[in-house]
Amino acid sequence: MKLRFLTLLVLPIFLQAQTESDSLFIKRMSDEIMTNGKAYDLLFELTKKIGGRLAGSPQQQNAIIWGKKNLESLGADKVFLQPCKTPNWKRGGNDFVAIVGVNGEAKLQPLAALALGNSMGSNGLIEAEILAVANFDELERRKEEVKGKIVYYHSVFDPTKIQTFKAYGESGAYRRSGASRAAKYGALAVLIHSLSTAPDNAPHTGSMTYDEAYPKIPAVALGPTDAQQLYNLAKKGKIKVQVQTYGFFLPDADENNVVAEIKGSEFPNEYITLGGHLDSWDVNEGAHDDGAGIVQTMEVLRVMKAVNYKPKRTIRFVLFANEENGVRGGNEYANQAKINKENHIFVLESDEGGFTPRSIGITAPPAQFAKFQAWNPLLKPYGSEITLGGGGTDIGPMLGVNKSTILAGLIPDSQRYFDLHHAKTDVFENVNKRELHLGAVNMAAIIYLVDKYGIK
Amino acid sequence: MKLRFLTLLVLPIFLQAQTESDSLFIKRMSDEIMTNGKAYDLLFELTKKIGGRLAGSPQQQNAIIWGKKNLESLGADKVFLQPCKTPNWKRGGNDFVAIVGVNGEAKLQPLAALALGNSMGSNGLIEAEILAVANFDELERRKEEVKGKIVYYHSVFDPTKIQTFKAYGESGAYRRSGASRAAKYGALAVLIHSLSTAPDNAPHTGSMTYDEAYPKIPAVALGPTDAQQLYNLAKKGKIKVQVQTYGFFLPDADENNVVAEIKGSEFPNEYITLGGHLDSWDVNEGAHDDGAGIVQTMEVLRVMKAVNYKPKRTIRFVLFANEENGVRGGNEYANQAKINKENHIFVLESDEGGFTPRSIGITAPPAQFAKFQAWNPLLKPYGSEITLGGGGTDIGPMLGVNKSTILAGLIPDSQRYFDLHHAKTDVFENVNKRELHLGAVNMAAIIYLVDKYGIK
Repeated sequence: MKLRFLTLLVLPIFLQAQTESDSLFIKRMSDEIMTNGKAYDLLFELTKKIGGRLAGSPQQQNAIIWGKKNLESLGADKVFLQPCKTPNWKRGGNDFVAIVGVNGEAKLQPLAALALGNSMGSNGLIEAEILAVANFDELERRKEEVKGKIVYYHSVFDPTKIQTFKAYGESGAYRRSGASRAAKYGALAVLIHSLSTAPDNAPHTGSMTYDEAYPKIPAVALGPTDAQQLYNLAKKGKIKVQVQTYGFFLPDADENNVVAEIKGSEFPNEYITLGGHLDSWDVNEGAHDDGAGIVQTMEVLRVMKAVNYKPKRTIRFVLFANEENGVRGGNEYANQAKINKENHIFVLESDEGGFTPRSIGITAPPAQFAKFQAWNPLLKPYGSEITLGGGGTDIGPMLGVNKSTILAGLIPDSQRYFDLHHAKTDVFENVNKRELHLGAVNMAAIIYLVDKYGIK
Repeated sequence: MKLRFLTLLVLPIFLQAQTESDSLFIKRMSDEIMTNGKAYDLLFELTKKIGGRLAGSPQQQNAIIWGKKNLESLGADKVFLQPCKTPNWKRGGNDFVAIVGVNGEAKLQPLAALALGNSMGSNGLIEAEILAVANFDELERRKEEVKGKIVYYHSVFDPTKIQTFKAYGESGAYRRSGASRAAKYGALAVLIHSLSTAPDNAPHTGSMTYDEAYPKIPAVALGPTDAQQLYNLAKKGKIKVQVQTYGFFLPDADENNVVAEIKGSEFPNEYITLGGHLDSWDVNEGAHDDGAGIVQTMEVLRVMKAVNYKPKRTIRFVLFANEENGVRGGNEYANQAKINKENHIFVLESDEGGFTPRSIGITAPPAQFAKFQAWNPLLKPYGSEITLGGGGTDIGPMLGVNKSTILAGLIPDSQRYFDLHHAKTDVFENVNKRELHLGAVNMAAIIYLVDKYGIK
């Protein structure tokens, strides 16, 4: 209230009137979403009737059909599929890791474990001693000891980072590239501490990539409790473990981005895109990651039709085919935009979970950013504001089409996300209806403002 | 970051240095809480080993013993009990509400129901026709129809209010005073739509009071789905329902506030209090309401000892005996403060759930409020800021001791609170560890700042 008052004081009268009508219009969309929103019900269908949606899975194919049908029934001007090839990684079996020896004495303790996505199978049982390291520095210092061992990285999530994505960025390096960095020195497999904030023992998967120069050794995430125990044991003695995984690739799958469009009435050649990704990992329902972003995107379309909004610019609602282990959907969307010489002015992603929104992150030069910030009084009543820096994995490739495209991301509260991210606990029951819908309110608000006023 | 920079620019150099050291000190407390915090483990004990803690119950007595023991072991200078009488309401049985007739045709459909706290038993089975009203206005318009009926209030929670406490304030009037307003016109019982935001059918209890001028008829909350169905049916025809409840009062119980104290080194006669309430309803574990506030209060004591903070002023950590159905604990704390002529400068309550903090609400005159707002850069890194208006039911009576006392409340995100508030779903499993601990961080920060700089 205070902020709004200050803003109005310094705005010319005509803009004040405009702002007041924007505030009413945004409230109309918010009331409609908070009262009649369908995102939560759609999420139930996507998670409980379709399920986990790894690229290449039958579930992902069904999600594409489901998405197209629902976007059509929501009344888009047109809905089309954008074919793309996606990776087709299969877990292949129940990943197995167990402690089998402590200081030469036999012991059998299976550990909670999930192979990382894209990781190759062990081709039989690997049994070897553990080399436990705190980080890459320690790996490099002890590189002579690596050969013939299974390397364990104690990649704990830093609990002191209040913005959990910062901790994820740091620990994430071990998941992404830990295998090849250890394979370089002759490791047989790597284990990591799950990238988790949860006070539980659920292992968290997630994508990794190999450096083609080294052997493709298995890479497995351990549950936090078991990982901590292994680290404690390994500091005190010689620990022998067994690892067996089954990962392999089938030929790339034929999948599709699902794109719905409302044609702009004044500037049909200026495109505004919002979206999330339809794929998920295989071990959960992909409810927060990124079922939430998918159904919020659909809800923005629904509310625009419900309040009879006619956009000036062309608005695209995109369900990206593949983010988790390849970003093939996002790359293809950018590729088609380039081929078709589309002028994309603004691209928004929701892929940080369906939690209460805290801000809308905007990546823009200072002058443009100031324009966005002037909308803060319109967003504050919905718990949000404009903050600097935002985007999403699926929409990053759009900068390759047009460097002046503004990338944006819905930034929800991040305290709970890494409790369940890529773990079996990312299920519908852990999504809150009001929080999910409030995210859609903020997405609708920013899309409306960008459509109405442009970005210059 | 930006805000801090601006603030520093306009502050004198000495204050800048001070602010920087405050920022480091608050980070030290935050790191300690986010890494080694015990609030979550204490909440497990309070909810799972003790359980629901209605005033007058054995669980509440055990919670007092548990609280005293733990505050002592956390190293307070002294811990003492403050005796008070609390109400001793008993539910007395399994509340029963059922539809038994629709337009004269027999039908039996039990409804999810919970008698409201303090509501008296039905003294046998009541069977009568429903008079369904949207609100008090409709009750008044139709007062001639009330006699001999069971009144149903369609007290739905307004989903469009983004600050859910606003909706609670509005619908809450039906829970608090709906019974006597209908009894005045001869109603036999009242039913209300639960004050709930959840997409489920759990009924929510909560306190009500009778106007002594009218008969004390039973008052019962229905699960949202069943309530909506009853309202729809009642609009179309004559609905007969049965109600049986068993509520009664035993003589007031002998209970205690539990008070821990660290003596101030410079201004021992200036008191700063923080707290929550130990009691809860009988149907759940009182995890968010208000186990969260209790263990956050204890965590602030723990962190001050862990970082070896020596307060200038006397700090009181209070577990109030009874908030839910009588505020007897808060009244007695204020009463003792008055008797002992204590100078209380600042009182903070956490009683809005253990969710991610959004702000610290401060009730203060403009000049003092500005002083609090100057601390925003110190709170922003922890997701919080100073906002106008705050307090809590337990601490409200402190204004009767000293009008210049500043009341404050931790204001967490409110989207999920009324999903589980006073319902059976308010259990430990629905509290998130990081969110709970981050609340304690913000409480520790504001207590530290008030202690260090005072409030003038």
